[in-house]
Amino acid sequence: MPSGLAVAVVGATGAVGQTTLKILEERKFPVRELRAFASARSKGKTVTFEGEPIRVEPVGPDSFEGIEIAFFSAGAAQAKEYAPHAVKAGAVVIDKSSAFRMDPQVPLVVPEINAGAVRGHRGIVACPNCTSIVTVMPLKPLHDAARLRRVVATSYQAVSGAGVNGVEELRRQTLAWARGEALTPEFFPHQIAFNVIPGIDKFADNGYTGEEMKLVNEVRKILDLPDLPVSPTTVRVPVFTAHSVAVNAETEIKLSRERAREVFATFPGLKLWDEPAELRYPMPVVVEGQDDCYVGRVREDLSLSNGLNFWVVGDQLRKGAALNGIQIAELLIR
Amino acid sequence: MPSGLAVAVVGATGAVGQTTLKILEERKFPVRELRAFASARSKGKTVTFEGEPIRVEPVGPDSFEGIEIAFFSAGAAQAKEYAPHAVKAGAVVIDKSSAFRMDPQVPLVVPEINAGAVRGHRGIVACPNCTSIVTVMPLKPLHDAARLRRVVATSYQAVSGAGVNGVEELRRQTLAWARGEALTPEFFPHQIAFNVIPGIDKFADNGYTGEEMKLVNEVRKILDLPDLPVSPTTVRVPVFTAHSVAVNAETEIKLSRERAREVFATFPGLKLWDEPAELRYPMPVVVEGQDDCYVGRVREDLSLSNGLNFWVVGDQLRKGAALNGIQIAELLIR
Repeated sequence: MPSGLAVAVVGATGAVGQTTLKILEERKFPVRELRAFASARSKGKTVTFEGEPIRVEPVGPDSFEGIEIAFFSAGAAQAKEYAPHAVKAGAVVIDKSSAFRMDPQVPLVVPEINAGAVRGHRGIVACPNCTSIVTVMPLKPLHDAARLRRVVATSYQAVSGAGVNGVEELRRQTLAWARGEALTPEFFPHQIAFNVIPGIDKFADNGYTGEEMKLVNEVRKILDLPDLPVSPTTVRVPVFTAHSVAVNAETEIKLSRERAREVFATFPGLKLWDEPAELRYPMPVVVEGQDDCYVGRVREDLSLSNGLNFWVVGDQLRKGAALNGIQIAELLIR
Repeated sequence: MPSGLAVAVVGATGAVGQTTLKILEERKFPVRELRAFASARSKGKTVTFEGEPIRVEPVGPDSFEGIEIAFFSAGAAQAKEYAPHAVKAGAVVIDKSSAFRMDPQVPLVVPEINAGAVRGHRGIVACPNCTSIVTVMPLKPLHDAARLRRVVATSYQAVSGAGVNGVEELRRQTLAWARGEALTPEFFPHQIAFNVIPGIDKFADNGYTGEEMKLVNEVRKILDLPDLPVSPTTVRVPVFTAHSVAVNAETEIKLSRERAREVFATFPGLKLWDEPAELRYPMPVVVEGQDDCYVGRVREDLSLSNGLNFWVVGDQLRKGAALNGIQIAELLIR
């Protein structure tokens, strides 16, 4: 009997799906059989896995026969429609969409933080939103060391967080600018090249966006701190890959800058990158393609007795999405 | 005797100097004679004022004979060297550099906020840093209505805040990218195209940058709140013109979202631009070229009983620099 698992990637032609295939190879995930699914629009396309072309199949209710692990990186509507079929067929679904994240029956997992939560899953494990993952990575060791009291998080999010269409739009507008042509928005609601857009996702009546409320609710669920005060602002910036977040955190216990740096430096999946005298601090161009989230600009808050400012950057296609999903799968098969 | 004033613009070939000349025309500032100065590097250049070419003269100790108002938009070193000569010659200096801002003898003025501070100047009036002006504009009416208790400010700063070299660098790197060439940093410490740089100005021992400490100290001085707790993070983004700032403010008195919007909407120099359902919020592409600072994304803070989040964008060459300087001159001649 051949070793390894039968794996499906749903949304295989998207930015996260492509990264999932790449990281499955990189980490030598035990794949016996790989099937690639996408919507009907991707009919006729192939993706590459371990040097072999894989025909992309349209996803349907009967797609999951024999599949053991299904990575969903399609939208929430597709996840809601097809994940139950995958579970019924016996697969564990690792879903990157927002469909199940806040479902109390579904664990929302960042393996370095709450690996234990995968136990007791009922067929679906949810992967948090990219900005939530990048933000929560340094918050966990900080909470363990000093107890979080309040968090203000302000993001600088890359276009690939919105998928390949986001990447295409920044590329297209930038090339139009270089040719001296007008920049027209097609995918984002406004020009993204040479601009910043402080509105990601829909607006709720309280003035917050869906992206901002995801950050609040997911950070609380991952840290198991349902009442943690979190104040979010999320902003799209003209960067291709890697999300940056400026975090201001108030804690119960005062941490010195040096102690906070130690706390960050020793947490798995975080890399301290904080030598400002040498102009070394995390930036998208440094972190793109890296698995770790990089944290730097660590400073005691001048305006609070027990506060810290820091700056965290993560490749939102890797740790913010595909890598985190594969780490969840590794937990499941351990 | 001809009416109007003898005006000098020092740093006339720079981004702020050019904008100063443009706004002097737009506002029909009473200019009898205009002289343009710059460093020796600009030898042989001309600038245009009211359709006439003006030869740029190298600035020197004897440049200010007969000058009544001197707009300095050169660096701090030039201001320190030449402003005293201008004052001795009888001019009032309106200085855009950091040279005199924190000097207790020198008023630091945003005319909508502390016009009265110009009285009692001793020949020099300082214009705040661009990010300080954009940030403090909505803070003033908020303080008047609700008393500020603490401010967390996180910036998204355009390259022209660093002068024409910053603009040139973003343009050059973006064109290199369009041609498929490597992107090399020459002016900024790191690549700025498709990146964000969380380090502007030098780093102090406490981990904060000069730009961040300017924001803290200048906001306190302008508002005459020397102990106001301010927590700053300043970041350069690949935008040509207009700085954006995400502000989280804690107040003594609770303001509803509706009341905060009224408070902002009625303050001179601020424009409320806050119809998220219509995707209307301040952005650099909206505010570039405008005199007002635009404020939007007004939300009650979910994490505090008396808190607000909002987003303010200002053209840092206009209100953040040249316009504010000319408004100071208008106060002086009133």
